[in-house]
Amino acid sequence: MPSLVERNLKPIITLTTDFGRQDGYVGAMQGVILSICPTARLVDISHQIPPQDIRRAAFVLYQTFSYYPAPTIHCVVVDPGVGSNRRAIAVRTSHGIFVGPDNGVFSLVLAAESVNVLEAVALTNSDYQLPRVSTTFHGRDVFAPAAAHLANGVPLGQLGPRAINLVRLELGPKIQNSEAQIIHVDHFGNLILNLTRHDITDPEQITFTIGPHVIKSLQATFADVAEGQLLAYTGSSRDHIEIAIRNGNAAQALRLQVGDVIKVSAGG
Amino acid sequence: MPSLVERNLKPIITLTTDFGRQDGYVGAMQGVILSICPTARLVDISHQIPPQDIRRAAFVLYQTFSYYPAPTIHCVVVDPGVGSNRRAIAVRTSHGIFVGPDNGVFSLVLAAESVNVLEAVALTNSDYQLPRVSTTFHGRDVFAPAAAHLANGVPLGQLGPRAINLVRLELGPKIQNSEAQIIHVDHFGNLILNLTRHDITDPEQITFTIGPHVIKSLQATFADVAEGQLLAYTGSSRDHIEIAIRNGNAAQALRLQVGDVIKVSAGG
Amino acid sequence: MPSLVERNLKPIITLTTDFGRQDGYVGAMQGVILSICPTARLVDISHQIPPQDIRRAAFVLYQTFSYYPAPTIHCVVVDPGVGSNRRAIAVRTSHGIFVGPDNGVFSLVLAAESVNVLEAVALTNSDYQLPRVSTTFHGRDVFAPAAAHLANGVPLGQLGPRAINLVRLELGPKIQNSEAQIIHVDHFGNLILNLTRHDITDPEQITFTIGPHVIKSLQATFADVAEGQLLAYTGSSRDHIEIAIRNGNAAQALRLQVGDVIKVSAGG
Repeated sequence: MPSLVERNLKPIITLTTDFGRQDGYVGAMQGVILSICPTARLVDISHQIPPQDIRRAAFVLYQTFSYYPAPTIHCVVVDPGVGSNRRAIAVRTSHGIFVGPDNGVFSLVLAAESVNVLEAVALTNSDYQLPRVSTTFHGRDVFAPAAAHLANGVPLGQLGPRAINLVRLELGPKIQNSEAQIIHVDHFGNLILNLTRHDITDPEQITFTIGPHVIKSLQATFADVAEGQLLAYTGSSRDHIEIAIRNGNAAQALRLQVGDVIKVSAGG
Repeated sequence: MPSLVERNLKPIITLTTDFGRQDGYVGAMQGVILSICPTARLVDISHQIPPQDIRRAAFVLYQTFSYYPAPTIHCVVVDPGVGSNRRAIAVRTSHGIFVGPDNGVFSLVLAAESVNVLEAVALTNSDYQLPRVSTTFHGRDVFAPAAAHLANGVPLGQLGPRAINLVRLELGPKIQNSEAQIIHVDHFGNLILNLTRHDITDPEQITFTIGPHVIKSLQATFADVAEGQLLAYTGSSRDHIEIAIRNGNAAQALRLQVGDVIKVSAGG
Repeated sequence: MPSLVERNLKPIITLTTDFGRQDGYVGAMQGVILSICPTARLVDISHQIPPQDIRRAAFVLYQTFSYYPAPTIHCVVVDPGVGSNRRAIAVRTSHGIFVGPDNGVFSLVLAAESVNVLEAVALTNSDYQLPRVSTTFHGRDVFAPAAAHLANGVPLGQLGPRAINLVRLELGPKIQNSEAQIIHVDHFGNLILNLTRHDITDPEQITFTIGPHVIKSLQATFADVAEGQLLAYTGSSRDHIEIAIRNGNAAQALRLQVGDVIKVSAGG
């Protein structure tokens, strides 16, 4: 593969943070990147990750990364351990380079079947950091410069020594004791389960029970039930099963959140 | 007109959705577009349309589209009927190409005097969709690819057969029984009416009555009244009349929302 | 310095407003800019400035501007006086061009030691405004066109006559009667004080008192205290001192906001 520079294409750098947009934190990161790599194409994935919610960031990245061209650089800064001895890392894979803290935020991506890890380093080389590195904002001082230098074609190995034993989040079991777990609640209040379509033998026979509510079989889409009705279906996020209320908010109506469990019966 | 490719200009693709930015949905759409058309210039108009609020999306697009260069592609995904038999469409006009569900979201734009519809198609050609189309996320699987292929110069007619009888939202009457309707409440709490400056004969004589509050005549701008005072004025959105509180939030103070009516007297 | 056009680099235009993203206001500004300067690189700093909060916008810009390349154009629209006789200005400095209302929004930047003001003009030349200028939305009709024309290489002096005596916000004293003031509360609830590291002689001896809470000495970073504990440290925003709760929200826990004061003792 020719380098991005040789192909004369502007590299894409995506940003995912828990910074919100009320402050200048994201703006500062963007400025750092454009100062180092003026031709970078910046794309925001999300700056609305709840503060310090590493699992949510991991899931949002997992929903997203595979739709980007392989050479994309994904910079993720949800970093409650900033300034401690947690490592800053960059991981080159078969499907993009990932830059961020070594706190598990890349766990779901790196566990995906289609992703092969090619190289991982700790970001310790100060030549590729801002001249003054703060103790509380490595997004600006360490991760943004690393992403920008990588976009400029600096080889990953120059950013620091090889990193092994990357932190991995524990992923819950699929179905245990006939229960599935809610791993994500989206903007619409749809409940995304730790269960995929591939875990279900017979979509006609499966039953979900939430308190007094029983949902029988998987539907194809929202329009298969009446407005305001509950349904289960194969969602758009890597075939995970979702539970929703058509044109409503299931999380609010059922008072459910990430980590809650739902009874599942394979039926038959 | 030479094609965008011949002019060597990067096409603009705007995005308007009800997806919010807490999930990876917008990020996935952006990745799909940049994978198909790496030189597209992506612009966010809004991802904060309230869930399933087709009318709000229609209004935001109407406030915005005319400020973009004519060849811009506007991709709008507020799509409560996703997966049902509602059509996916692309509409080429004298002022931009519009891509999204056929649910009325383009009604206000297509009814604008300055806009001529040149061609409309249903997006049925699977060559211009992702290989696997989900039943719940056509923003990523159908609309983003269509917008990106159009940006690459694919003729509209290749995306599917001609579409006629596009869905149009009912627009309220201008002044009926001496009432005007609130069609939009903006971020500042300003109330935008279904009445434009052109509907008013004498701006000195017009009177608006909201409960105990009487607003006499149109002002030129906020600074024409004292802080905290109510005023009516010709707003910046295509000459619609607005009611506001200077440096305050009229919607909150008056407890008014979209669809509420206000008494209007032409005076004299 | 060769002009941006000669260097064949796309100019960066940053946007900072109080418009939110639920309406088409930001989208209209972006369209105006791209119509005038199709190769502009648009960057959002924030559209979440609270309505009419000039001080917050001034601080966010101050956190951010120095990380951008010197020729960047920063367009800031927090403009409660729109349509009144407040001036619209553009200010060329040693570190970027600033475009917006003359209401003090650039005070903190222009007071920064590293910034030299080279030229300031009032934006009165209608050749560089939209053909129709509304009385309520100069972001779209005056500031966006000015920023775009400047990005195209139009000399600042063509936009209007020289402007002197720019409005400056009063900046609070550093430590007065042993009190420091909260000048910014960020997305995480961290409290940023009007005190910088340079104002503190001995970081081991300093004590902050907030009601029953006493914080002794500056820490290097969050991880130096236990989860849920209060700490003070030199923040990432131009060395201002911050008070935070590790992985918590200090503003909510202590019920503090911008303008509140905190007791400071130099100790010894």
